[in-house]
Amino acid sequence: MINWLNTPITAPNAEFFALAQSRQAQLTKPLGALGELETLAMRVSAMQKTVHPAIEKVCVCIFASDHGIVAEGVSAFPQTVTVEMVKNFAAGGAAMNVLSRYLHADFEVVDVGLLKTLALETVRVDKTACGTANFLYHAAMTELELQHALTAGKTAVQRACEKKAHLFIGGEMGIGNTSSATAIACALLKQRTDILTGAGTGLDSQAIIHKSQVIQAALDKHRAVLTTPLAVLQTVGGFEIAALVGAYLFAAQQRLPVLVDGFIATVASLVAIKINPQAQAWFFYAHQSNEQGHAKVLAMLQVKPLLNLAMRLGEGSGALIAVPLLQMACRLQSQMATFAQAHITTT
Amino acid sequence: MINWLNTPITAPNAEFFALAQSRQAQLTKPLGALGELETLAMRVSAMQKTVHPAIEKVCVCIFASDHGIVAEGVSAFPQTVTVEMVKNFAAGGAAMNVLSRYLHADFEVVDVGLLKTLALETVRVDKTACGTANFLYHAAMTELELQHALTAGKTAVQRACEKKAHLFIGGEMGIGNTSSATAIACALLKQRTDILTGAGTGLDSQAIIHKSQVIQAALDKHRAVLTTPLAVLQTVGGFEIAALVGAYLFAAQQRLPVLVDGFIATVASLVAIKINPQAQAWFFYAHQSNEQGHAKVLAMLQVKPLLNLAMRLGEGSGALIAVPLLQMACRLQSQMATFAQAHITTT
Repeated sequence: MINWLNTPITAPNAEFFALAQSRQAQLTKPLGALGELETLAMRVSAMQKTVHPAIEKVCVCIFASDHGIVAEGVSAFPQTVTVEMVKNFAAGGAAMNVLSRYLHADFEVVDVGLLKTLALETVRVDKTACGTANFLYHAAMTELELQHALTAGKTAVQRACEKKAHLFIGGEMGIGNTSSATAIACALLKQRTDILTGAGTGLDSQAIIHKSQVIQAALDKHRAVLTTPLAVLQTVGGFEIAALVGAYLFAAQQRLPVLVDGFIATVASLVAIKINPQAQAWFFYAHQSNEQGHAKVLAMLQVKPLLNLAMRLGEGSGALIAVPLLQMACRLQSQMATFAQAHITTT
Repeated sequence: MINWLNTPITAPNAEFFALAQSRQAQLTKPLGALGELETLAMRVSAMQKTVHPAIEKVCVCIFASDHGIVAEGVSAFPQTVTVEMVKNFAAGGAAMNVLSRYLHADFEVVDVGLLKTLALETVRVDKTACGTANFLYHAAMTELELQHALTAGKTAVQRACEKKAHLFIGGEMGIGNTSSATAIACALLKQRTDILTGAGTGLDSQAIIHKSQVIQAALDKHRAVLTTPLAVLQTVGGFEIAALVGAYLFAAQQRLPVLVDGFIATVASLVAIKINPQAQAWFFYAHQSNEQGHAKVLAMLQVKPLLNLAMRLGEGSGALIAVPLLQMACRLQSQMATFAQAHITTT
């Protein structure tokens, strides 16, 4: 196992959380009137060690990879769509491009395991292999491949830190990756596959049953080796999911707040938390998606995400949609006048 | 009754709604994957008659006024806070200032009935009277005053139209105005006051019971005259609530989308809808607040707001928080590549 995964994670600063709480009580509004926005800002205060928190510079990294399990007919879209969508990211036409431009966010795409390597300036190549193995028959990846994919996530966060990011968002693109994420979640949470398996990009109910059976068969086959979070990730994971796990753990080690997207990202955060429970304090959860298993995994993590807009696009899109809430929460705590400053007596 | 209230309201264009729906199906994402954002963008398309909708220019107007009912001990904050908060708006220190700056929104404050008239350049004075009468004993306002307050809302929307607004947000400031809004909602929806009465700026449970009893006594006293939405507004309303009603109706007449804030704004939208049901098609509902009656009034209007973040500040703040969702929804529909443009085959 690679050493950096074990680097300790410090907790957000409790003293600044308390100071932020006290500042919230002095701002020109009834106590608690900003609801969950107050908690958001207080958490960022504790992370950034300031009562004037700011989420301005946002770094977005989409990890893209292919999945051997697609051969089993588990996706509504053909495998070629992974590469085609990466080209779409490169050309600026995807949802994530539109949202990143809106937010003035730093945006990058990393090929961590596409079947085909693209010669495109705007796609960074940090490839583990050309797609995972079909995990119905084989481990999805070797231990060395797992380490490479985890480290690809770490180095993406290193780049974000160099850019002085206030927030890291990891996205994913990979036809078949809800199958992989579902398998991971079932293994780590000891859930039945029919409970957590959903439509992904748009399967009908018959195809969802087939997908659930494929995942169940894979879990049955590999049961003996699914003993640690890393073993689960290696056996039924995907390179982009492993990259997210590495990114989330390293961000927490670096005290960099993370905004977690939908089902796949949430499952990656679950793996990170299973590896080091201290990581969770650095995660914000953006939204509850319509993908079947998402609500369940969020509930097991005991988190209530900010939004519930029936989205199910993945890529990181739900996280980008939630960014303004974090930004406004911080601006409110940082910039509102106190009752004293406004010379207001409330009694 | 004033004539302009009866100006017909046209429906958003169904043809452009259908065209937008068809465009959504061609964008590089699984069908329906953007969830409620797709519906938002399609609704704006129908309002703006384009498949490339845009909510960029946002105009925010806060109507401020005082309430005679405060004499009955129905608010946790003293009446002087209305004027003090208006000074805070003028000085740029309130939540609404911070949020308007974040959104680059056009921001104005209109005194429609403060007890004290402020000589401040940044506060527009369009005053009906110096506060409403105590509606426990008298009608809150005369018919002439009602007309003036409704028209103050209309002229605020006229200014927004002149500025080429894509979206109108009405806010309110007035210590005591949850009592007025609760009385209106109870009268129009035939609800008991103890069901809809909440904490406002922060009453304890004992004080909420008192507030509910005051409102019930007022409704009992005036029952005979509470026969039309306008009569209800005149008898137990507030000048800022009447201004919101006028603003919402005139915006709908002008085909200008409206984003409705929390409890008080939602009750104002209810009055507008009771006056002309066609108005509702022009309203978006931003959030469900923690004020007791809000969830109930939203349910009776059969609307599901975009956010539920336990806010209860009023002023318009919940609406501003939701603006980026509308903006991003429109940008996604307008700017994403289609499958054809991205040369992606999905089967």
